[in-house]
Amino acid sequence: MINKLVDKISTLNAPVVVGLDPMLAYVPEHIKRAAFEEYGETLEGASEAIWQFNKAIVDAVYDLIPAVKPQIAMYEQFGIPGLTAFERTCQYCKSKGLVVIGDIKRGDIGSTSGAYAVGHLGRVSVGSKSYSGFSEDFVTVNPYLGSDGVKPFIDICKQEKKGIFVLVKTSNPSSGEFQDQLVDGTPLYELVGKKVAEWGKECMGDAYSNVGCVVGATYPEMGKVLRKLMPKTYILVPGYGAQGGKAEDLVHYFNKDGLGAIVNSSRGIIAAYKQEKYESFGEQNFADASRQAVIDMIEDITGAIGKQ
Amino acid sequence: MINKLVDKISTLNAPVVVGLDPMLAYVPEHIKRAAFEEYGETLEGASEAIWQFNKAIVDAVYDLIPAVKPQIAMYEQFGIPGLTAFERTCQYCKSKGLVVIGDIKRGDIGSTSGAYAVGHLGRVSVGSKSYSGFSEDFVTVNPYLGSDGVKPFIDICKQEKKGIFVLVKTSNPSSGEFQDQLVDGTPLYELVGKKVAEWGKECMGDAYSNVGCVVGATYPEMGKVLRKLMPKTYILVPGYGAQGGKAEDLVHYFNKDGLGAIVNSSRGIIAAYKQEKYESFGEQNFADASRQAVIDMIEDITGAIGKQ
Repeated sequence: MINKLVDKISTLNAPVVVGLDPMLAYVPEHIKRAAFEEYGETLEGASEAIWQFNKAIVDAVYDLIPAVKPQIAMYEQFGIPGLTAFERTCQYCKSKGLVVIGDIKRGDIGSTSGAYAVGHLGRVSVGSKSYSGFSEDFVTVNPYLGSDGVKPFIDICKQEKKGIFVLVKTSNPSSGEFQDQLVDGTPLYELVGKKVAEWGKECMGDAYSNVGCVVGATYPEMGKVLRKLMPKTYILVPGYGAQGGKAEDLVHYFNKDGLGAIVNSSRGIIAAYKQEKYESFGEQNFADASRQAVIDMIEDITGAIGKQ
Repeated sequence: MINKLVDKISTLNAPVVVGLDPMLAYVPEHIKRAAFEEYGETLEGASEAIWQFNKAIVDAVYDLIPAVKPQIAMYEQFGIPGLTAFERTCQYCKSKGLVVIGDIKRGDIGSTSGAYAVGHLGRVSVGSKSYSGFSEDFVTVNPYLGSDGVKPFIDICKQEKKGIFVLVKTSNPSSGEFQDQLVDGTPLYELVGKKVAEWGKECMGDAYSNVGCVVGATYPEMGKVLRKLMPKTYILVPGYGAQGGKAEDLVHYFNKDGLGAIVNSSRGIIAAYKQEKYESFGEQNFADASRQAVIDMIEDITGAIGKQ
């Protein structure tokens, strides 16, 4: 799956991923109104609203980008109807040729991680049949439980030609509380990074591994070190835009081949119409505002890499 | 919510929780057959089978135990129908007066953790209304992202009088890979433990905090140290029984008041009928075997604590 992702990034010259993290507050009034008229102010109504919102944005940007990253929490908060909207979004994005990165940050003891891996990347057996519960191409994985919590995901990646991104250094302000702790002079995130590189050897694509990692855009110096430590690991970079990460900070997340990283923006794209810069589009044309924001983001990032 | 849990543990003299982690392989043939006859060998059929299996076990043991711990991965692997069985199981257990600990091990950056917290412990707003997406009493939380990934759960716990158990030292073989790394001579799990105790002060019940922790039964020496480090923190202890933890190893997870820990068994209870010890019950009477296994587990653990 990493080969498909790299191919699409190269072909489109777009090392970006759009985070489909729809808060109801981002959804334009006319979409909410229509959904609530049909389903009431219910979990079903909320889920219809975020699905219609996602669909319009995907229709407006799918030809520009290699991948989307739906954040499952934003759907899970609406219970079963929300998760139905998550699955529908994943399926729709795949039908548009997009690579789907499920931002699920799961991780547990071996047998339980196995169940998550089967549920999101593989197929679960029911009697003589088998089914996909959810059907992402990649998922994000939390490494706190160590190798035996991650390996079941890698096993399924090998079987199903899928991939994962393991959290190494997250973009949030307090990520350093545990991740930056020094172990014999080496920060924990580097130890995790080394493990990710080691796990990645088991599951290589052509130039990069199907085991990638997550390093926040908000910690560029650490990104630079990690890039060198794990040259064949693709880095998924959250935290650009709304969280404060800037394109010029991101150049060192890329290898000299111009590849090796894919930068996520969620709010900055899907709620672009709420920004002063794009407000002239108007709320009705929110998806066009998102398209323009994607074009600007690609230009911003490829421009910065070009100057490297 | 910790007060309710402690009261129930004291009243029943049963510091145990039954893990409802139904693998299809544990479900007796007659239940699977009935479910598949009605729904086919489908995700719906699998989910009906695990729901009927859970219900029978809950009916057989609910008067003996304070709490259940459904592991969401075992449901999530069956997609939407599986998660419907998860929610149905949670609701049913609550209707029987049981405290429900959702073993979800979520954790993300602030706004995203907020969505998980709202979805599992709180209420999500939809227009002028609000709803519970899922409705556990406690959930387990992964601390790798630091305070701002945990605080949103604590905020919801305060609002809704709910609780969490934060992973400190997990029961799996490779948990030490990162959790045991020494930071200035102190293992990471102790640093996490100290933080948990600190977070817990914000959200106290009477004698114990609504912010508990997870420490595996498979690491009793570490459990002993952590017990002293965090006297007001309830410890959820996985790893007893099938994973190898023994009752005599667990005495130091308890405080002198005989409280402070609740021990989980999943496979050992729900698949008891498959053990040699309980095979005389027969597959048809699997729930009676589970009841006997619960009685034996309570005796085993309270016996060991009594000898302390």
